[in-house]
Amino acid sequence: MAACATATRGLQQLLVLSALGFLATSAPQPPNIVLLLMDDMGWGDLGVYGEPSRETPNLDKMALEGMLFPNFYSANPLCSPSRAALLTGRLPIRNGFYTSNGHARNAYTPQEIMGGIPNSEHLLPELLKKAGYTNKIVGKWHLGHRPQFHPLKHGFDEWFGSPNCHFGPYDNKVKPNIPVYRDWEMVGRFYEEFPINLRTGEANLTQLYLQEALDFIKTQHARQSPFFLYWAIDATHAPVYASRPFLGTSHRGRYGDAVREIDDSVGKILSLLQNLGISKNTFVFFTSDNGAALISAPKEGGSNGPFLCGKQTTFEGGMREPAIAWWPGHIAAGQVSHQLGSIMDLFTTSLSVAGLKPPSDRIIDGLDLLPTLLQGHMMDRPIFYYRGNTLMAVTLGQYKAHFWTWTNSWEEFRQGIDFCPGQNVSGVTTHTQEEHTELPLIFHLGRDPGERFPLSFASAEYQDTLSRITQVVQQHQKSLIPGQPQLNVCNQAVMNWAPPGCEKLGKCLTPPESVPEKCSWAH
Amino acid sequence: MAACATATRGLQQLLVLSALGFLATSAPQPPNIVLLLMDDMGWGDLGVYGEPSRETPNLDKMALEGMLFPNFYSANPLCSPSRAALLTGRLPIRNGFYTSNGHARNAYTPQEIMGGIPNSEHLLPELLKKAGYTNKIVGKWHLGHRPQFHPLKHGFDEWFGSPNCHFGPYDNKVKPNIPVYRDWEMVGRFYEEFPINLRTGEANLTQLYLQEALDFIKTQHARQSPFFLYWAIDATHAPVYASRPFLGTSHRGRYGDAVREIDDSVGKILSLLQNLGISKNTFVFFTSDNGAALISAPKEGGSNGPFLCGKQTTFEGGMREPAIAWWPGHIAAGQVSHQLGSIMDLFTTSLSVAGLKPPSDRIIDGLDLLPTLLQGHMMDRPIFYYRGNTLMAVTLGQYKAHFWTWTNSWEEFRQGIDFCPGQNVSGVTTHTQEEHTELPLIFHLGRDPGERFPLSFASAEYQDTLSRITQVVQQHQKSLIPGQPQLNVCNQAVMNWAPPGCEKLGKCLTPPESVPEKCSWAH
Repeated sequence: MAACATATRGLQQLLVLSALGFLATSAPQPPNIVLLLMDDMGWGDLGVYGEPSRETPNLDKMALEGMLFPNFYSANPLCSPSRAALLTGRLPIRNGFYTSNGHARNAYTPQEIMGGIPNSEHLLPELLKKAGYTNKIVGKWHLGHRPQFHPLKHGFDEWFGSPNCHFGPYDNKVKPNIPVYRDWEMVGRFYEEFPINLRTGEANLTQLYLQEALDFIKTQHARQSPFFLYWAIDATHAPVYASRPFLGTSHRGRYGDAVREIDDSVGKILSLLQNLGISKNTFVFFTSDNGAALISAPKEGGSNGPFLCGKQTTFEGGMREPAIAWWPGHIAAGQVSHQLGSIMDLFTTSLSVAGLKPPSDRIIDGLDLLPTLLQGHMMDRPIFYYRGNTLMAVTLGQYKAHFWTWTNSWEEFRQGIDFCPGQNVSGVTTHTQEEHTELPLIFHLGRDPGERFPLSFASAEYQDTLSRITQVVQQHQKSLIPGQPQLNVCNQAVMNWAPPGCEKLGKCLTPPESVPEKCSWAH
Repeated sequence: MAACATATRGLQQLLVLSALGFLATSAPQPPNIVLLLMDDMGWGDLGVYGEPSRETPNLDKMALEGMLFPNFYSANPLCSPSRAALLTGRLPIRNGFYTSNGHARNAYTPQEIMGGIPNSEHLLPELLKKAGYTNKIVGKWHLGHRPQFHPLKHGFDEWFGSPNCHFGPYDNKVKPNIPVYRDWEMVGRFYEEFPINLRTGEANLTQLYLQEALDFIKTQHARQSPFFLYWAIDATHAPVYASRPFLGTSHRGRYGDAVREIDDSVGKILSLLQNLGISKNTFVFFTSDNGAALISAPKEGGSNGPFLCGKQTTFEGGMREPAIAWWPGHIAAGQVSHQLGSIMDLFTTSLSVAGLKPPSDRIIDGLDLLPTLLQGHMMDRPIFYYRGNTLMAVTLGQYKAHFWTWTNSWEEFRQGIDFCPGQNVSGVTTHTQEEHTELPLIFHLGRDPGERFPLSFASAEYQDTLSRITQVVQQHQKSLIPGQPQLNVCNQAVMNWAPPGCEKLGKCLTPPESVPEKCSWAH
C-alpha cells in the first residue's frame, strides 16, 4: 500500500511540477532556498566566531560575503524540538515536540518514540510546494520515524538520509540499526550498508550528503524549478565522523576533521550556485540545531566559545548558534547584525523569500528577517528557552532572565555526565532544579556573555528589566496553547524494525510485542 | 640639574636628528615602526576574535588587511614584566623583571618599587636610534619610575605618559598621585591635571594619547625621519575609562566604551599613515600586555574568549593575546598565522624591519617573525610561562605542559579575589601551589583550548609529548642565567613624591623616611 501511495503521489508531483516548469518560462522564478543545518555544532566552532584553530575558510568567507548573526538562537537545547521548530516556525511547546513526563526535561526522538510531527502542523516544504518549489531533505529528519511522520508526507519531494541519530551499532535484536532512506524507502542501515567506523571515525556520509545536494541543485536548475534544499547533516553529532581525506587533518582532532569536511562541503555548494549563475537567486542560511555537546568534548564535542555550558542546557552555550545568511546581490557583504534571531525565523523568512505568508490561523514564533537582511532593520522580540514544558529563561534585548536553573541532577553529575565541564557559576549552574520565578536571575549578556555575574536584585537596572520581562512573559503565557506532547510515550515495537523497502533488501526485522510506556527523560 | 641635563640632551638630539634628516634625502629610509600595546586587553575582546558584540570594526579591518595571530603570547601574566620583555626581547627572568621573594609570585612596578630596567639591558629604542630612528613612547612606561629608569635614558626621544598604573586618587600624603610626563619632566598628575572620574568613567586620556601619536607621526614624516612609536595606552586597565563621546556607547558597558575608543583611535592612526602615503613604509603591530583581568569583570575587565582564567595566571587566559600585524604591500592581506608568537618577537622583528641585528652577547628570546609575516614560514619554538622565577608551564606546538598549577591562595580566593570567575577545572585551577614537575599536566590546545581535559598519563601521546617537552625545558634551564631581580625591594620613599619638573608646577611632595623592605607579593 505504501508503494502504491508512493507511485500515485509521485505522479501527482510530476504533473504539478511540469505545470510549474511550464509557468516558469513565463513568470519570474522565486528564489531558491538552501538551509544548511548543522548538528550539535557550537557558536564557537567557526573561525569567524573566534575558534582559535581557524579551520573554516569557506564558512568564514560566506560570512564575509553575507550577514553574520552573533545573537542567533535555536528553539531548544536539543535536536528534535529544534528541528520541528525550524520547519514549523513554532516553539516546541506549541508544535508538540516536548515531554510533560517530568519537570523541565529535554526530550527528542529516539527509535522508541511514539510521536512525531502532527499532521495539523504546516511544514515549510508543504507551504513552499504551493509556490512551485521542489523540496529535498538531505540528512537527519528527526521529526518522527513512524510511517505517518515520513518527510515525504510533510511536504518534501525527496529525501536522502535517516530518521534518527546515527547512534549504534546495534544488534538488530534488542534494537535495530537506523535505516537510511532514499525518498519513500530505506536503502540500507547505518553500520551496515552505510558504515561508520567508531574506532577510526571514518565514514563517507558527508560526501554522500554533499553529492545529494549538488545533484539536486543541478537537476532543479536544469528543470528551471525553484527549489528548497534542507541540508541537515550530522557529522558533528557524536559519534563524529569524517571521510578519509579529512581524517587527521584538523588541529582540533576528530571533531575538527568533521568540521573541516563540512566547511569544504559548504564551499562546494556555494561554488556550484555561483558557477550555475544562480547565487543571486538563492537564499542560503547556515546554522545549527543546538549548542555544542560539551559532554562529548574534547574528542567528539565542539566549542561554545565564551558562553556557559552546552547542549541540554538553557544557558547561552546550549542555545546560541552560529548563523550566516548569504544571498549575493541582495544581502550586502560583510555585515554583522545584532538582531536577536531564532531558528524559527528561517520558516517565516523562507516563506517571505518565496513571496508567501505564514499561516494566519495559529501563532507563528518565527519572524520575517528579510527587513534585517536587506535593510538592516532591528526588531524587538523575546527569545524563550524551554526544557520540556518549562519556561526556563527568556532574553529580551541584552537581558536574560532565568526563571529556573538546572544543568542535570547530582546523581547524573556524579556519574560523570557534565554539561558544563570546567565551568561552575555558583547558584547558576545548579544540580538541583532551582526556582527563581518570583525573582529571576538576570544577566546582561553584553557585559557578561558568560552568565557569570547576576545583576543585583536591589539595582534599578534589575527592577526595570524585571518589569519589562515580566510583561513579555505574561503575554506569552496568556496566549500559549500547548500542543499535544509528542515525546511522552515510548514503545520498543515502533523502532525501525521494518521500514518501507526493507522487504526488497531482505532487511526486515521482527518487532517485539507492543508495550507503550511513559518515556523516561533523565535531564 | 635635571633641567640642565634635559636642555643639553635635547640639543644633542636635535643635532643628531638634523644630521639624519639630511642623510635621509640621499639614502633609502628604513620602515617606520608602530607598536600598539594594550593594557589588560584579552584575546576575546576583538570582534575578529569572536567577541559577540563585535564593536571593533577598525581592528577587525586591520586584521583583514594584515595577518592575525591566534597563538600569540605575552611574556608574563602581568604588565611590567611583559613590557620589559617586549622592549628587551628577553624573558623577565633574564632581564630582572621578577621577584624571588616568594614561590611563583607575580610582581610589577608599583610606586614603592626600588627596581627598574637595568642599564645593562639594551632596549629596542636604544638600538633603533643607531639606525637613525626617532623614538616616542606614548602612555605607560612601567619599567621603573626612579630617575635612572626614565625612558629617555633608555632610548626614547620623547615621552607623553605615566611611569606607573593610573590607580588612585591618592591623598598625596601616604601616597602621591601618579605623575604624567612630557619628555623629561612631569606636567601634572592623574586625578589632578589629568582627571579620571571614577564614578562616571570619564577621562580624555585616550584622546590625548591619540593626538600625541598623530602629531608625532606627522612631525616625523615632515622631517623625513624614520620613527618608532610605542603606543602603550591603558584605558582598558582598571579603573577603565573613556572620553565623553564614547561613554555609554558600547553594549559591553564601560569596559566596552574603552575598547570602542581604542578601536576608533587605531583606525585614525592607520588612516593617517595611509593619508600620508607612508603605510607601505610603516610596520604596525597590535597586541596586549597580558590577558584580561577577570577579577575586574564584568564592569572593568575584558574577555579571554574560550580560554581558562585571566591575568595573573599562567593558563591561556592569562597570556594568550590578540595580535595583528599590518604592513600594506609587504604583509599580504587576510592572513591567519598559527605561528606561536611572543611579545618578545616584537623586539627582534622590529630590529629586523629596521635592518638591524639583535645583540649577540646575550640570549634573546624573541624571534624574527619577518619570515612568517612576509613568506608565511612557520618556526618551532617554545612558549614559557613564568610566575616570578618559577617556570609554571611551557607550550610546544599544540601541547602545553603545566609544571605547577596555581591561581591564588584559598585565603585570597575566599576574600573574593577570583582570577577564574565561573571556571573551575578540578586539579587544574588549584588554590594551593601544586607541583607537577615530574609528571606535568599536559593539554592539547587544539582539541582543548580551554585546558579542561588533561591527557592521560598512560597514553602514548602523553609520553611522547613529555619527552619532547622535557628536552626543551632542560635546554632552557641549562642556559638560563637569571638577571638580578628588580622587583624584590620596596620603599615608600621612592614613590613619585617629587618627579623632575614638580618644582616648576609647585607640585613637589615631601617623601617619608627611606625604609627599604622586602616587597610582599600576594599571588
